[in-house]
Amino acid sequence: MLRIPYDELFDTLRQILVLLGFAADRAALCARLFAESSRDGVYSHGVNRFPRFIRAIRNGIVDLHAKPELITSLGSLERWDGKSGPGNLNAHHSMARAISLAREHGVGCVALGNTNHWMRGGTYGWQAAEAGVIAVCWTNTMPNLPPWGANEPRLGNNPLVIAVPRTEGHVVLDMAMSQFSYGALESYRRRGEMLPVIGGFDSEGQLTRDPAAIEQSARPLPVGYWKGSGLALMLDLMAGLLSGGHFTHQIAPDLEQESRLSQVFVAFNLGSLTREEVTRQTADAVIAYVKSSPPSEGAEVRYPGEQVLRTRRENLARGIPIEPEIWEQVRHT
Amino acid sequence: MLRIPYDELFDTLRQILVLLGFAADRAALCARLFAESSRDGVYSHGVNRFPRFIRAIRNGIVDLHAKPELITSLGSLERWDGKSGPGNLNAHHSMARAISLAREHGVGCVALGNTNHWMRGGTYGWQAAEAGVIAVCWTNTMPNLPPWGANEPRLGNNPLVIAVPRTEGHVVLDMAMSQFSYGALESYRRRGEMLPVIGGFDSEGQLTRDPAAIEQSARPLPVGYWKGSGLALMLDLMAGLLSGGHFTHQIAPDLEQESRLSQVFVAFNLGSLTREEVTRQTADAVIAYVKSSPPSEGAEVRYPGEQVLRTRRENLARGIPIEPEIWEQVRHT
Repeated sequence: MLRIPYDELFDTLRQILVLLGFAADRAALCARLFAESSRDGVYSHGVNRFPRFIRAIRNGIVDLHAKPELITSLGSLERWDGKSGPGNLNAHHSMARAISLAREHGVGCVALGNTNHWMRGGTYGWQAAEAGVIAVCWTNTMPNLPPWGANEPRLGNNPLVIAVPRTEGHVVLDMAMSQFSYGALESYRRRGEMLPVIGGFDSEGQLTRDPAAIEQSARPLPVGYWKGSGLALMLDLMAGLLSGGHFTHQIAPDLEQESRLSQVFVAFNLGSLTREEVTRQTADAVIAYVKSSPPSEGAEVRYPGEQVLRTRRENLARGIPIEPEIWEQVRHT
Repeated sequence: MLRIPYDELFDTLRQILVLLGFAADRAALCARLFAESSRDGVYSHGVNRFPRFIRAIRNGIVDLHAKPELITSLGSLERWDGKSGPGNLNAHHSMARAISLAREHGVGCVALGNTNHWMRGGTYGWQAAEAGVIAVCWTNTMPNLPPWGANEPRLGNNPLVIAVPRTEGHVVLDMAMSQFSYGALESYRRRGEMLPVIGGFDSEGQLTRDPAAIEQSARPLPVGYWKGSGLALMLDLMAGLLSGGHFTHQIAPDLEQESRLSQVFVAFNLGSLTREEVTRQTADAVIAYVKSSPPSEGAEVRYPGEQVLRTRRENLARGIPIEPEIWEQVRHT
């Protein structure tokens, strides 16, 4: 495993994007969002994903020049068309706009249709928390998850992000509606490990902890069985209806072709309601209470986002871990 | 099991509330919300809960005369104080206000502190869907769920409700963050059945499908293990921060004393963005697609809210099923 300094990683990605035709400011932002995802330990949606992002530009899925366009405004709720632009730039723009709307109106919502994969969802949660607001956002995806009671994918895993600002590290939840992503299944299989809990069905329809059996059946499990199945459906309905964009059933079920996604960004203004100090103290008190439980056997109670900060510190100190073949691929895109 | 006609049930509850001192319109609304919950098959939070509600009034937990009071307005986001009033009346008022804010601003949010148990959460989802808006609402609760990695309750199960309007029955998700409620565990145990999936830990810290073992350990499982644990934490943080009310750690861990809850109601205006017909068709297309998957062995793919309509039809035709001892209790409160 290589350890690439953050600045070198960022600058390498930025230069590639500039050469591809990105405007300087958009190249810098796009490179930063990729580099920060790897810095924070979300390797699957950081640099590892960069070569596929470049392919999507080259095969016309992503229009690198496109910027989101306002379609309808109702005041605190706006509908935007992502014009098939880069998913992370579109999502960053949309969260920034939701934050502005929240500052003006109290709560602000941007519904974005016709966009591309936003890469790491948590990015937009950290963005909002840095701005001092509470935020909720989610995206739909191509069908990759069988509904509870079904054995073929008809739901997206529709990642949901919730962020609350706090002094000692924001609290940021970034969860897909499948118990394990295909990326996670692959990691466990490669390490020859069973999943820590049941993660899906095998080809005989039995619940299993064997990652290979789930990859083969294509039947990963929604979080909480029927509950996560229902939640994934609601997130898709809301994203499609609010944005006027596509639903999961209209999205190509192919990782290389997945496009025209729908996303929702909601920001809640805390500033005028509570002093930031109150926010911090209450969030701290809640987390202190949660952590005060005796841990179960050998476990540790963590709040969402806690591990990110540890990884970030380590990776900034030691360099960002990148597989040599990925780094080769990136530098020769 | 008795079968009480809906009108008789409603009127019995209404008269009891009037005798207790409720104003006529508030007695009627409160009785309707209880009766509708049982009508829709949510017996645990319908008539079965009525005797405890009356006790809460008598012991001073619920102030039957109190009405919510506006504390702060930021435009589309308002903070209200529930003044310890009846939880279902407060929640109904708050969702109605969020709907008004959404009609005016696009998205509307009411954060309600100092309220009481809202009974069936789905009530406020159906209310919003009937009004033609998309809505999300949630409540915190007393600590009743150990965080992932911990073995003592430090989280609420914090029910989350999401509703989307549709012609052929609204789509309404009503899910707590525990895989099974204590009520559900008790039902399985009484029927001598194992849970259909793993529902918690036994006293040795092993995952189990035995409901009695989970009741004994008080370690039910969050939906999706670490994921539902994180989601429950975020819902509590948002509810407490936005409302300025109490967090789970400040709520008495006693079913009879549980009070001063915090809740959030968010409504999204679809009317001006899309025609209602479009709403219906897209929601229908999504549901048709989800249901088009071959079912797994002996299963059926359902959308959230589907079962409610079946039960509602049956109970309106045959009367609402009520256990005789509950009916005796209710009539002699």
